[in-house]
Amino acid sequence: MSFIAHPQDMHFAEPLALQSGAMLRDYTLRYETYGTLNAERSNAVLICHALNASHHVAGVYEGQSRSEGWWDNMIGPGKPVDTNRFFVIGVNNLGSCFGSSGPMHPNPDTARVYGPDFPVVTVEDWVNAQARLLDRLGIATLAAVMGGSLGGMQALSWTLQHPTRVRHAVVVASAPNLNAENIAFNEVARRAIITDPDFHGGRFYEHGVVPQRGLRIARMIGHITYLSDDVMNQKFGRTLRAAVTEHASGYRFSTQDIEFEIESYLRYQGDKFSEYFDANTYLLITRALDYFDPARAHGGDLAAALARVQARFLVVSFSTDWRFSPARSREIVQALVKNQRDVSYAEIDAPHGHDAFLLDDPRYLSVVRAYFERIDGGGAA
Amino acid sequence: MSFIAHPQDMHFAEPLALQSGAMLRDYTLRYETYGTLNAERSNAVLICHALNASHHVAGVYEGQSRSEGWWDNMIGPGKPVDTNRFFVIGVNNLGSCFGSSGPMHPNPDTARVYGPDFPVVTVEDWVNAQARLLDRLGIATLAAVMGGSLGGMQALSWTLQHPTRVRHAVVVASAPNLNAENIAFNEVARRAIITDPDFHGGRFYEHGVVPQRGLRIARMIGHITYLSDDVMNQKFGRTLRAAVTEHASGYRFSTQDIEFEIESYLRYQGDKFSEYFDANTYLLITRALDYFDPARAHGGDLAAALARVQARFLVVSFSTDWRFSPARSREIVQALVKNQRDVSYAEIDAPHGHDAFLLDDPRYLSVVRAYFERIDGGGAA
Repeated sequence: MSFIAHPQDMHFAEPLALQSGAMLRDYTLRYETYGTLNAERSNAVLICHALNASHHVAGVYEGQSRSEGWWDNMIGPGKPVDTNRFFVIGVNNLGSCFGSSGPMHPNPDTARVYGPDFPVVTVEDWVNAQARLLDRLGIATLAAVMGGSLGGMQALSWTLQHPTRVRHAVVVASAPNLNAENIAFNEVARRAIITDPDFHGGRFYEHGVVPQRGLRIARMIGHITYLSDDVMNQKFGRTLRAAVTEHASGYRFSTQDIEFEIESYLRYQGDKFSEYFDANTYLLITRALDYFDPARAHGGDLAAALARVQARFLVVSFSTDWRFSPARSREIVQALVKNQRDVSYAEIDAPHGHDAFLLDDPRYLSVVRAYFERIDGGGAA
Repeated sequence: MSFIAHPQDMHFAEPLALQSGAMLRDYTLRYETYGTLNAERSNAVLICHALNASHHVAGVYEGQSRSEGWWDNMIGPGKPVDTNRFFVIGVNNLGSCFGSSGPMHPNPDTARVYGPDFPVVTVEDWVNAQARLLDRLGIATLAAVMGGSLGGMQALSWTLQHPTRVRHAVVVASAPNLNAENIAFNEVARRAIITDPDFHGGRFYEHGVVPQRGLRIARMIGHITYLSDDVMNQKFGRTLRAAVTEHASGYRFSTQDIEFEIESYLRYQGDKFSEYFDANTYLLITRALDYFDPARAHGGDLAAALARVQARFLVVSFSTDWRFSPARSREIVQALVKNQRDVSYAEIDAPHGHDAFLLDDPRYLSVVRAYFERIDGGGAA
């Protein structure tokens, strides 16, 4: 049994200037903290979330079964990121649908629900918003910032935007930018949502509907890219959901009924997702992924972009991750090495594909544990 | 300038028993032939098409610009499959939307357009229908049967269903069955079509609409899987379609506008496809792909399944094809070798992914040319 987590809201009345040039006049960030901030305020670890996650990183909610945080195997008392030593902060990003200001909230300028008018936010904007939250919490410097996938991009961006405020960055299953194939998958998912007649140009709230068809397709595509070919073959292969006896093959010979287990799995994942995830949030977060590209301002030279990094790094990749392959992590490592920065790199031979960053691979967890054991937690213990 | 091709129709009044148990009472096959059948009737080569292609394999249509057949680089006078030596037949498969009987035609039993009632057809059914066409053309034995991707599956199935009627099989960029990931991509595409409100359970013809949204998504997903990661990065990378000057990044900061070249390409491909391809056909052909699995009746043992093969084989794969990777072709090769069958195998180091089987790679074309030069074309020349 895990500990009880308590989400909190922090309201910001000072406008936030976004990378696009737009202003977010007034906003709220939902966050959770675990462990205790030490007297020196030197043991804070910020956890950044990916597409589908939130501030609820670890612990459970009182009286709610199956409410473990999305990195509960990683973070908690005695866990690799040990909340007996570290003060851990999970924060929900702007534009999300899990509590922080997002498209389903009223625009303070118009009192109308934002919908498609919620400004486009970037990884850099999220980091700036997170920095303001740390200001409020009285945390000048992070012992570490950590994230997987899109969360890893935020961790990397922290070391560029606020180089003196981060001592360590842990970047897991991430990439220095999306490649054409990554953008392509995002675009198909977005088109599925936007062309769903129930999307209504993003104003579906006012019509009392949800573009569930589009969300289902988006999630199904996502799931394919999260899993490795091998694990899909191992878990599902060509297994039929329910073989019929009329045909020797067991096939029911239908184009619309579920025939294979993999179809059943994907439909289930799509259905579940379409019931809780916001369509406008999906567009915003995939766009933040597309736009992240710190090398862009340096003519594509990642080493030049990372020259201002001061933090030490742990970079972790997974051998079967084809969404963000180990080669993409090695680009980050090489750019850091070129700048003579202190970087540890682990390429974990795991079968699970991109999803591995959320799973219980003992080698992966022990690499992270060993790294955090070496981080000075100040007077925490 | 290529030669002029002439599509022809062959009507069959004898019912065709399908693998599902259903009967196709009455049907038409559209086909084209190139070259001349020799007196011994021994120089016929059957070309089988993949998802999006047709009987129009080579040549052009009179007065129609850009009407080259889909394998016009491969087939014709003096080409790798030389129509000066061989009598080449291209046939459109049942269920297609390019002329042979399919879901947009009237069901002879009811006089109503088939729509979703067109029976589920399999690779085996297509091969049986093709065999009947050969019977009518007076061709007892094929010098070769050839196809890429799904066409390669038909070529392989020919050697199993009619082992004495095929002397050579040329199987390009194919696989002995779909794996879980392949089925998963097909399923997402099908869901996009079926859940499009304009699909109307497959009866969209009667409503005067076309489920273009679903077809666009299906085609976009398909295109991603046809291209290699490398070629996508090389052709599109992170290039913006039209950088704006308001922001240093060049980004327009929009979730809905086209930002990257790859998005523009995919939307264009999706739009084009949705204007000519039939939605019910898409469902039928992807299901035929899903169902193909000759090893299934042999407990998954492909070597046991291929024991009855008599043909000689050329198997070709492409290094960057991740839809049907070289490993899948090697499964076919190994099963043939285990049965001591005569098989040549070429793994072409091509950057283009699955699409390579349609392109002008000189090594690929010369492998096929060399193989066909060794095939006895009888008294053709």
